[in-house]
Amino acid sequence: MSDIRTRALACRDAAPAIAMLDADARRALLRDMAAAVDAHARAILDANAKDMAGAADKGVQGAMLDRLKLDASRVAAIANAVREVANLPDVVGQVTRREIRPNGLAIERVRIPLGVVAMIYEARPNVTADAAALCMKAGNAVILRGGSEALHSNLAIAAALHEAMDRHGVPREVLTIMDDLSREAMVQLLQLSDIVDLAIPRGGEGLIRFVTEHARVPVIKHYKGVCHLYVDRDADPDVAMDLLLDGKTTRTGVCNALETLLVHQDIAPSFLPRAAEALRAKGVELRGDEASRALAGDMKPATEDDYAAEFLDLILAVRVVDSLDDAIAHIRRYGSDHTEVIATRNETTAAQFVHALRSAVIMVNASSRFSDGGELGLGAEIGISTTRLHAYGPMGAESLTIERFVVRGEGQVRHPESRTG
Amino acid sequence: MSDIRTRALACRDAAPAIAMLDADARRALLRDMAAAVDAHARAILDANAKDMAGAADKGVQGAMLDRLKLDASRVAAIANAVREVANLPDVVGQVTRREIRPNGLAIERVRIPLGVVAMIYEARPNVTADAAALCMKAGNAVILRGGSEALHSNLAIAAALHEAMDRHGVPREVLTIMDDLSREAMVQLLQLSDIVDLAIPRGGEGLIRFVTEHARVPVIKHYKGVCHLYVDRDADPDVAMDLLLDGKTTRTGVCNALETLLVHQDIAPSFLPRAAEALRAKGVELRGDEASRALAGDMKPATEDDYAAEFLDLILAVRVVDSLDDAIAHIRRYGSDHTEVIATRNETTAAQFVHALRSAVIMVNASSRFSDGGELGLGAEIGISTTRLHAYGPMGAESLTIERFVVRGEGQVRHPESRTG
Repeated sequence: MSDIRTRALACRDAAPAIAMLDADARRALLRDMAAAVDAHARAILDANAKDMAGAADKGVQGAMLDRLKLDASRVAAIANAVREVANLPDVVGQVTRREIRPNGLAIERVRIPLGVVAMIYEARPNVTADAAALCMKAGNAVILRGGSEALHSNLAIAAALHEAMDRHGVPREVLTIMDDLSREAMVQLLQLSDIVDLAIPRGGEGLIRFVTEHARVPVIKHYKGVCHLYVDRDADPDVAMDLLLDGKTTRTGVCNALETLLVHQDIAPSFLPRAAEALRAKGVELRGDEASRALAGDMKPATEDDYAAEFLDLILAVRVVDSLDDAIAHIRRYGSDHTEVIATRNETTAAQFVHALRSAVIMVNASSRFSDGGELGLGAEIGISTTRLHAYGPMGAESLTIERFVVRGEGQVRHPESRTG
Repeated sequence: MSDIRTRALACRDAAPAIAMLDADARRALLRDMAAAVDAHARAILDANAKDMAGAADKGVQGAMLDRLKLDASRVAAIANAVREVANLPDVVGQVTRREIRPNGLAIERVRIPLGVVAMIYEARPNVTADAAALCMKAGNAVILRGGSEALHSNLAIAAALHEAMDRHGVPREVLTIMDDLSREAMVQLLQLSDIVDLAIPRGGEGLIRFVTEHARVPVIKHYKGVCHLYVDRDADPDVAMDLLLDGKTTRTGVCNALETLLVHQDIAPSFLPRAAEALRAKGVELRGDEASRALAGDMKPATEDDYAAEFLDLILAVRVVDSLDDAIAHIRRYGSDHTEVIATRNETTAAQFVHALRSAVIMVNASSRFSDGGELGLGAEIGISTTRLHAYGPMGAESLTIERFVVRGEGQVRHPESRTG
């Protein structure tokens, strides 16, 4: 038996220890895990220094190096994030529905943990604590497979978390960190369909494709966000401007940032020049169709690729559309099912937009940047699913559980004629 | 581009035509589809006669031939099943939760269809109509890949359904029947992860394993049901007897039949001899551990394989257990996560049993045979999931939808400082 399988089996066998804790005990455990991160800050920073040196030796630079780097305030933020998860309402055992059947059977739908969740991620060490906390909050055991650049940091964070688990009598196997970071080991993990209930890859498109192609366990994907703002003929132009600037300029490297602006032809002559000016003042490069360029000039022509792109940068694709239907057709063709926004004062138009599109999140007169677990009231999020199965959109602790049936009767049978005597 | 891909794309592109119908229109369509099955009964029976002749030529016999066979009353039953699905409450557009955030955003969770569902099944022609109706009731387009023995029957049923769809202006591609039944074509279908949202295999373990191994689209599995009855020391023996006979003897070939009886040692001396006598009177063969054989004699020894088996026959594995914990450990080890039953008058014991096990359905003093979509109030079912993701246990129309977020605001932005002017 491979070492990967042995460790995964140990994780699965330990899972009841976290699933069966009551809500208070699970909260106390997570609070202690947060405290342990604080208490071990020095060791975590030392480990991170090794990772940073190793990455520098390999020539890692810029944003990737920044994602890897920890300092005292980032370690404190990691601990605080775990504390926030600890304080969320407990979801395990929650009764979501009750029904009494005509034959007297009392049927409840009750949330239970998924079981074993495997997180596959890249360089950010904070994911180690975030994912462990959220999975365990939902009563799951977790197998973490982070990036090799961050291995020392991840092991140091895990060591802190394990120490807290020891104090609560929760076996360390509940939080299993993979230290064999080879591709072969990852593939082995992804094929353990009798052990792993769900794999969640977080990272670049390459990682996500690799996981999808090799997995025999269920995968929830977090692909790119090509988010659209459609400024309707009946939009309040001030609201539309606010949504545009908030969506494009406040943070560009996130999946809920805007990538494409669609403007109804009736409002484009007044709206587009004003929008272009404000965007350019914030350093945004515009790429437009012919109609946009005629109205707001000084714009590169937009290509097909631009309309499909997640720029993650101060770049915005622009198009003037003839109608609501035209906007919907554009989004259906180029969208990524993540988040779409409409600015309109016309409720019928808004309802048509919502009805025609099947993206995970539709915003009516609200910024795409609210497409986030915290902002939508889920507490912390483990990611944003663009897979239309199990969870769609921001995923919180609840998405790491499943509803099962608990039925209580008084001896009811389906075929009473089967009774003896 | 392969023919499979072309047809699947056409199915996906047609999907909005069924997703966007309102509830009344969808109900009218399904009622018409039911009527069309009745109206085309002659053609369906003629096609089925061809399949039966072909199967006989191939030497198909017994239960498999019976599953393939249609007669007038079976065709009427197919139409009635479609009519029942038509009359179920509509789930598309259902608002499952509403919340107003402190910043005034109104957040709704709303059910939308999954998109394109692929059903992979074996010889039963009724699945063609059942699956089409249930998927379409939930607003999905559907690709059906049935067994080659039933191809003529399936095409004739689909022709009837298509005629009804024509009358409602719903493109035939919404219900796509695969006629290339090669393994290669199935694998191609299962790899269309940009088109197919969910694959549901129904059939023997071989088919399900094949689908799981080759799929890059999400799969919801329906493995075997190794259902347990645990007769606790505090059981009402009459209730326990009823649950036992209903669970084991009323229908053996179904996944919610009992396969193993666990009896607490304190009640075994009085219960087991009585149970054995009643079961033997119904022709049930018992296979037991040493303690069971000492109490109820004339029993083959049970092997490890017997405890893991889904007999689908008049055979029952039996074991005397020392305690509740012992029963739980047995079920964790040998169970299939389908349905487990406890007979007890002790509420604490029942709660411990429920809490410790994570099967899809737990019955307290009720028969395992109620583990069925209709009996649990879901209306028709498309299957029973033992995958702990998306749906767990019996799956109805609701399980063929996903909840997304619809957010309504009045121009709220996340970073008000990004506003101009």
